[in-house]
Amino acid sequence: MFERISAEGLAHFSYLVGMGKSAFVVDPRRDCEIYQEMASKEGMVISHIFETHRNEDYAIGSLELRERTGAVIYHGPREDWHYGIVLQDGDRFGFGQLEVRAIHTPGHTDEHMAYALMDNKSGGEAIAVFTGDALFVGEVGRTDLPGPQHLERLSHALYRSLHERILTLGDGALVCPAHGAGSVCGGDINEREFSTVGLERARNPMLQLREDEFVRRKLKEHLDRPPYFRRMESMNLGERMAMSGLPDPWPLSPAEFEGAMREGAVVLDVRMAESFAGAYIKGAINIWIDGLAQYAGWLLPYDRPLALVVADPVQVDRTTRILVRMGYDNIIGYLKGGMSHWLREGREFDRLPTMSVHDLKEAMERDEVFILDPRPAHEWEEYRVPGSHHLFVGELKDHIPEVPRDRIVACLCSSGFRGSMSAAILREHGFGNARNVLGGIGAWRSAGYEVEDGE
Amino acid sequence: MFERISAEGLAHFSYLVGMGKSAFVVDPRRDCEIYQEMASKEGMVISHIFETHRNEDYAIGSLELRERTGAVIYHGPREDWHYGIVLQDGDRFGFGQLEVRAIHTPGHTDEHMAYALMDNKSGGEAIAVFTGDALFVGEVGRTDLPGPQHLERLSHALYRSLHERILTLGDGALVCPAHGAGSVCGGDINEREFSTVGLERARNPMLQLREDEFVRRKLKEHLDRPPYFRRMESMNLGERMAMSGLPDPWPLSPAEFEGAMREGAVVLDVRMAESFAGAYIKGAINIWIDGLAQYAGWLLPYDRPLALVVADPVQVDRTTRILVRMGYDNIIGYLKGGMSHWLREGREFDRLPTMSVHDLKEAMERDEVFILDPRPAHEWEEYRVPGSHHLFVGELKDHIPEVPRDRIVACLCSSGFRGSMSAAILREHGFGNARNVLGGIGAWRSAGYEVEDGE
Amino acid sequence: MFERISAEGLAHFSYLVGMGKSAFVVDPRRDCEIYQEMASKEGMVISHIFETHRNEDYAIGSLELRERTGAVIYHGPREDWHYGIVLQDGDRFGFGQLEVRAIHTPGHTDEHMAYALMDNKSGGEAIAVFTGDALFVGEVGRTDLPGPQHLERLSHALYRSLHERILTLGDGALVCPAHGAGSVCGGDINEREFSTVGLERARNPMLQLREDEFVRRKLKEHLDRPPYFRRMESMNLGERMAMSGLPDPWPLSPAEFEGAMREGAVVLDVRMAESFAGAYIKGAINIWIDGLAQYAGWLLPYDRPLALVVADPVQVDRTTRILVRMGYDNIIGYLKGGMSHWLREGREFDRLPTMSVHDLKEAMERDEVFILDPRPAHEWEEYRVPGSHHLFVGELKDHIPEVPRDRIVACLCSSGFRGSMSAAILREHGFGNARNVLGGIGAWRSAGYEVEDGE
Amino acid sequence: MFERISAEGLAHFSYLVGMGKSAFVVDPRRDCEIYQEMASKEGMVISHIFETHRNEDYAIGSLELRERTGAVIYHGPREDWHYGIVLQDGDRFGFGQLEVRAIHTPGHTDEHMAYALMDNKSGGEAIAVFTGDALFVGEVGRTDLPGPQHLERLSHALYRSLHERILTLGDGALVCPAHGAGSVCGGDINEREFSTVGLERARNPMLQLREDEFVRRKLKEHLDRPPYFRRMESMNLGERMAMSGLPDPWPLSPAEFEGAMREGAVVLDVRMAESFAGAYIKGAINIWIDGLAQYAGWLLPYDRPLALVVADPVQVDRTTRILVRMGYDNIIGYLKGGMSHWLREGREFDRLPTMSVHDLKEAMERDEVFILDPRPAHEWEEYRVPGSHHLFVGELKDHIPEVPRDRIVACLCSSGFRGSMSAAILREHGFGNARNVLGGIGAWRSAGYEVEDGE
Repeated sequence: MFERISAEGLAHFSYLVGMGKSAFVVDPRRDCEIYQEMASKEGMVISHIFETHRNEDYAIGSLELRERTGAVIYHGPREDWHYGIVLQDGDRFGFGQLEVRAIHTPGHTDEHMAYALMDNKSGGEAIAVFTGDALFVGEVGRTDLPGPQHLERLSHALYRSLHERILTLGDGALVCPAHGAGSVCGGDINEREFSTVGLERARNPMLQLREDEFVRRKLKEHLDRPPYFRRMESMNLGERMAMSGLPDPWPLSPAEFEGAMREGAVVLDVRMAESFAGAYIKGAINIWIDGLAQYAGWLLPYDRPLALVVADPVQVDRTTRILVRMGYDNIIGYLKGGMSHWLREGREFDRLPTMSVHDLKEAMERDEVFILDPRPAHEWEEYRVPGSHHLFVGELKDHIPEVPRDRIVACLCSSGFRGSMSAAILREHGFGNARNVLGGIGAWRSAGYEVEDGE
Repeated sequence: MFERISAEGLAHFSYLVGMGKSAFVVDPRRDCEIYQEMASKEGMVISHIFETHRNEDYAIGSLELRERTGAVIYHGPREDWHYGIVLQDGDRFGFGQLEVRAIHTPGHTDEHMAYALMDNKSGGEAIAVFTGDALFVGEVGRTDLPGPQHLERLSHALYRSLHERILTLGDGALVCPAHGAGSVCGGDINEREFSTVGLERARNPMLQLREDEFVRRKLKEHLDRPPYFRRMESMNLGERMAMSGLPDPWPLSPAEFEGAMREGAVVLDVRMAESFAGAYIKGAINIWIDGLAQYAGWLLPYDRPLALVVADPVQVDRTTRILVRMGYDNIIGYLKGGMSHWLREGREFDRLPTMSVHDLKEAMERDEVFILDPRPAHEWEEYRVPGSHHLFVGELKDHIPEVPRDRIVACLCSSGFRGSMSAAILREHGFGNARNVLGGIGAWRSAGYEVEDGE
Repeated sequence: MFERISAEGLAHFSYLVGMGKSAFVVDPRRDCEIYQEMASKEGMVISHIFETHRNEDYAIGSLELRERTGAVIYHGPREDWHYGIVLQDGDRFGFGQLEVRAIHTPGHTDEHMAYALMDNKSGGEAIAVFTGDALFVGEVGRTDLPGPQHLERLSHALYRSLHERILTLGDGALVCPAHGAGSVCGGDINEREFSTVGLERARNPMLQLREDEFVRRKLKEHLDRPPYFRRMESMNLGERMAMSGLPDPWPLSPAEFEGAMREGAVVLDVRMAESFAGAYIKGAINIWIDGLAQYAGWLLPYDRPLALVVADPVQVDRTTRILVRMGYDNIIGYLKGGMSHWLREGREFDRLPTMSVHDLKEAMERDEVFILDPRPAHEWEEYRVPGSHHLFVGELKDHIPEVPRDRIVACLCSSGFRGSMSAAILREHGFGNARNVLGGIGAWRSAGYEVEDGE
Repeated sequence: MFERISAEGLAHFSYLVGMGKSAFVVDPRRDCEIYQEMASKEGMVISHIFETHRNEDYAIGSLELRERTGAVIYHGPREDWHYGIVLQDGDRFGFGQLEVRAIHTPGHTDEHMAYALMDNKSGGEAIAVFTGDALFVGEVGRTDLPGPQHLERLSHALYRSLHERILTLGDGALVCPAHGAGSVCGGDINEREFSTVGLERARNPMLQLREDEFVRRKLKEHLDRPPYFRRMESMNLGERMAMSGLPDPWPLSPAEFEGAMREGAVVLDVRMAESFAGAYIKGAINIWIDGLAQYAGWLLPYDRPLALVVADPVQVDRTTRILVRMGYDNIIGYLKGGMSHWLREGREFDRLPTMSVHDLKEAMERDEVFILDPRPAHEWEEYRVPGSHHLFVGELKDHIPEVPRDRIVACLCSSGFRGSMSAAILREHGFGNARNVLGGIGAWRSAGYEVEDGE
């Protein structure tokens, strides 16, 4: 059994591998019932959990999986890690004819471990390697997270881990990384779903560089670092209880929903921007489902319960799983019957004014508008509408004074989702003139209007 | 095996009953794979299909089910029926120890048949009766559909069918009607999910009346008669091919979707009113999913393909099943990625202006507004906002000249769904001042504003 | 929501009924996850559990369901009941427009409660009645279980409960009993899946009798009373922990399986008689799946773990659920790969000699055979092979000395299942000459051989 | 999307790969609904079907998949192929950024094609190669099927195809073969589920050989060639109708089952050997489910309907899928209620005498027994019980005269399955003294009795 399990939303990959009667999991996700189901269908017990590193971008499910299976957790050397067994480079574990070999591969973090999988029956080379956040398909891991003071040192370390420990495993080894395209853990991960050491050696642009070039490139790298990363790091140190099961958000009547708000619940509205524009509950935070992994960590507090507004009840499970993987466990319910039910009861709501790109163009010509571009810096640097002002949505709250109150504020992102998030934040801060530009720069381009490229 | 299968949306009930190796279905729905699955799980063959009458409110699935199973179709006496075997009152069919007895019960239609189910092992009384559109839980069938010239005669006939043919089956017989609460086929069907002859005799208000009172009540009854009823009647005469399988609407890119529109597809947008308000495709017809059974027949043409806009792809199957049950087979696809995808590509869209009930109140005080109430007549007669004008949404297109163009037109229904449908129609006819009142009279009442009751 | 949930194997029915936001369950089964799933799909909470009586034939799931849902348990008046709230006749509970009314209906037991369901919206009569073990479809409850000293008194009590408390609820009320055909709790329950008070009044043979006739009939009744009933009674007094989840029997290798046997596990082989005959593990008890409800209680000990032999792994879940409902929680595993795997490893096995009915006939003619009929007394009294000796399989172990050791012992039941059980028991006691007659009296009759009827 | 779909039983792998809106399948299995389901879940259309060669060991599903999807079929150059488009070496097909390149790789057959998958976005090397029956994990394809006159030539061709066309694709390319461990298409396929060109180059024992050694080894190879291979070859030339859907075998009562037998149906009993021994229908062929792929082709005729006997109804679907993949479409039903039901009705049956290995040992010592070993030649050559006679079960019918009728014939395979098949065949031919040795040589060894190794 050799299965990759992906965690939708986070572009996170975990692996379940077994032979004979026992199996292991690499970097389990938090809603971990799936591993046990798959293993027991084959009559296997999950006996080992291998972590590649202390993850920053999601809440790892090792504790939950241990709770269910009794498996032992293994990870690299860190003093402040509390719940597992510390490995040394070269430690080996047998699973039938398979063998797992721990390879210390510092770079992304100091304790980072890769795990080579050997098949003793057919020879000495590795057949696969679990590369964690060291090597992705077409990309390598970040080295900036432990802090600027470590950046240069870790970049050198990563270079050596890659060239001396991973590429030396043989071109035929399958590469099994912790993330796929769309992850915040790598800048430009390829969409291809599998790779091999040989393919990476030949094609991964970062592996074509000399050490000095490689390090120079890493020093210049500019990636988001959502504030929730800190939270994940501390959660993943194990200073917590295992979650006992997936939260099961309850359908709340409008009255119950309002009660929850009064008691401190934060409203997360995952509907699309144009639906949110039509009517929303005052104070709601609007993040579309596919944007949760990137933006929830910036906008949602960890210390308050969450109450959901969805377009269809089927979205509750999807939303819950993504939130739980990010460490948001306290999801108390969702609005039963949706916004329409809320409205029929005459409860207070707001509308978010919108503009089309043509409206925006006209307003620009009349010089009536301040264009706020809320995308991450690297997107803005790549291209933008001339005259737009960059204020990343994740940090917008701290920059409110920079936004003018005497004119229309047009929030303009690539397609309208982040514009909606930003305009809603501004409205909360009293900007009655904040508007979301529907369709964003995508629509702007389609209309043939000018876009400015490069830095 | 004794199973009730309901067709969500239409509040239609069908029944699958079997004993030994053969089974029968009463009034099958059109997406009929479920009957065969249930029967073959028990090792039974569906050999008989019993229709209670030529249904007007949905496309019956007898042809489709015969195609799958080879079962023979039976129905009451009508000259123009082409596909089944005509029954006589008293005809009997054995299924193991069970016996089905055809009971001619004119009233709803002339050929209406009820079917009593006897259990010969335990005695002579009926154990259940399939009452079709003659008797519901707490209500009786309509007698107005064949036309005003038949109304009085059929009302007398229904009275006698009920009292002389159905109530005489014994109080202990289970009542199995063709519809539940929410159907357009009965004014006030109870929400209870089962009943018996005894319960109906004791409590059904219509069964407490003398024949003259009963007929007088039926003569005064005022129920919707959607135009699609004619279509269903002719479909159900069998002048058509059996549908070969459930349509499988394809995810269409915005470009493909627009192509389909150019080639004649009608856009059906099933999102909620407030989402539709935020942005919609010009020309789209907005009917929320739970309103399809009641309103699709008024607004959607039968001779053009349909293209869907949904809030979540999971809604496609639900929408398709309801449409198919109403005879709409030509559903070509749905907008992949939803409205946001459409907007990002910069395609043309519109927004539907909305008002809150407070906005409406103010506008009324300034005498700037024409309130259009699009609900069916019987709802309007029950209660309404003073000064509002009644124009049923199903017939709005034919009454456009009655709507003023020089002021705000506030479309106000009970909760906002039908207001949205109406405002969108007006906008299509050039009423830039048409608005939907979000929350409708429900919200109006909650705000403490005045409502006028009775006629 | 009005759902009947049946517990396969035990012919036990429970009911989940809800309106608005809360729901109740009558007599829940022990693998109770289904109630919560169904309720929460409708957005309902299970708030009440009603028990009709202290069940003897299965382990009731009230504790388990309370553990999951927090619902409160209600039951009739008994001093020794520890876990619920004692009801008085006439107590009422509202669930939206529905009302549950407790009706004290002694007879089956002294504390037996029926529950009438009223629909206050439509009138005063009961719409349904949960009759527990007082009234079944075509049969009434046993009155012999509390002991011979109570038999006459309880039979009178049952008569009055039926005629004065249940039949008075109105002919139209749906009858919802705790058991269907095949249960050990009633002699001749009809296979029909539903009934009404009216149908029972008209047809239930026991309800056609006068009180003295009724009591006389009950005094003469002769029903099995498996020894596990005592166990169930004490389990159902609540002197136990709630089971935390369904046991998940593990696939055991032959070596592990043998290890479990050495540590005391009893082998339950649920394969069909002819498969068991081919090869079985020494000491195994052979009860086919559909016979578990009737025979497990006689043959399986409660104080030892169970290890299963199945014909296909899919049978493990089915077997486990039935066992758990009977209070057997300690099911440790099943033989992976089935008997073939066991045989391939060369482990010890036995074969059970069989005879065809023709072999039996010949042996009878040669006067070489002792025919042992292991069916329950009432079956034997109905019909049997001339010259056969009755020894009920459930009590066979206590009657070993009555079986001759000097000739062939042909175990002959109706079809071969119980014959297999009996022959295996005899073989355990050293009867090398015990044989199962394949096909049993069914095959005997088909061959045209003589059968003796009546007492 | 890159998915491997395996066909249980045949150890056959097919692949579904897509990018953007279109997808292709390599070597589809015949129960092909799964490809379309997986593709349409991703919004993709299957537009191309690539066959690696005219398969001999299963009925390829290209026609069925084309019928469902309209996809075009491509295959290598053969004159007698009727239904697809003939490829030339080097033909290319684009699927988004992916490209499929046809590589003529004669060896297994003359027209064999491999297909390299390139990812144009990231460089020029192949990322994967579909190797059909040229290269497996740890093994290479057979070259003996087209006949002894081609063996040497094709072995040379295969060597060159492997070394010059496949190994040159780069060590990093994923190897995607048509078969896994257990297939009749390769002698010693590794159980590992994936491989790469690099791993095969380093470890595949056959790729370590020089051309002359390689050819010499192939010339000496000795593999089964079931007679159904011819049938498959001709089916796979396309001279047939596409199967319109998976057969749905009907539950047959014993009377119906016997009727089917009278009309020519062959009884296939898939129960385990020891169950079959207990009782079976005269004339039944006993092949256990996991043995179907290897033995059905030898024992089941293609021109008669099949009727199944199973241990549990759940086995019907599994059995049907395997049979259909082998071209057996005419599966009319299965015995409802299993053998027990048959027996209860007193229908004719037989028992298959068995021996334990100890019984066999004794009989050998008394010199009363002829040991018939029905395993394939290569297994027999590897090890056997001294004094046993080899007669392969697939060819047993043609060698009946070689079996002595004057003594016990003990059929002895590795575990008892093929012994059961053989003993049943002998019994059909009047050998009342044929017996199956339960547990086979596995049990024999466990008992410590002597086994003879090598040739």
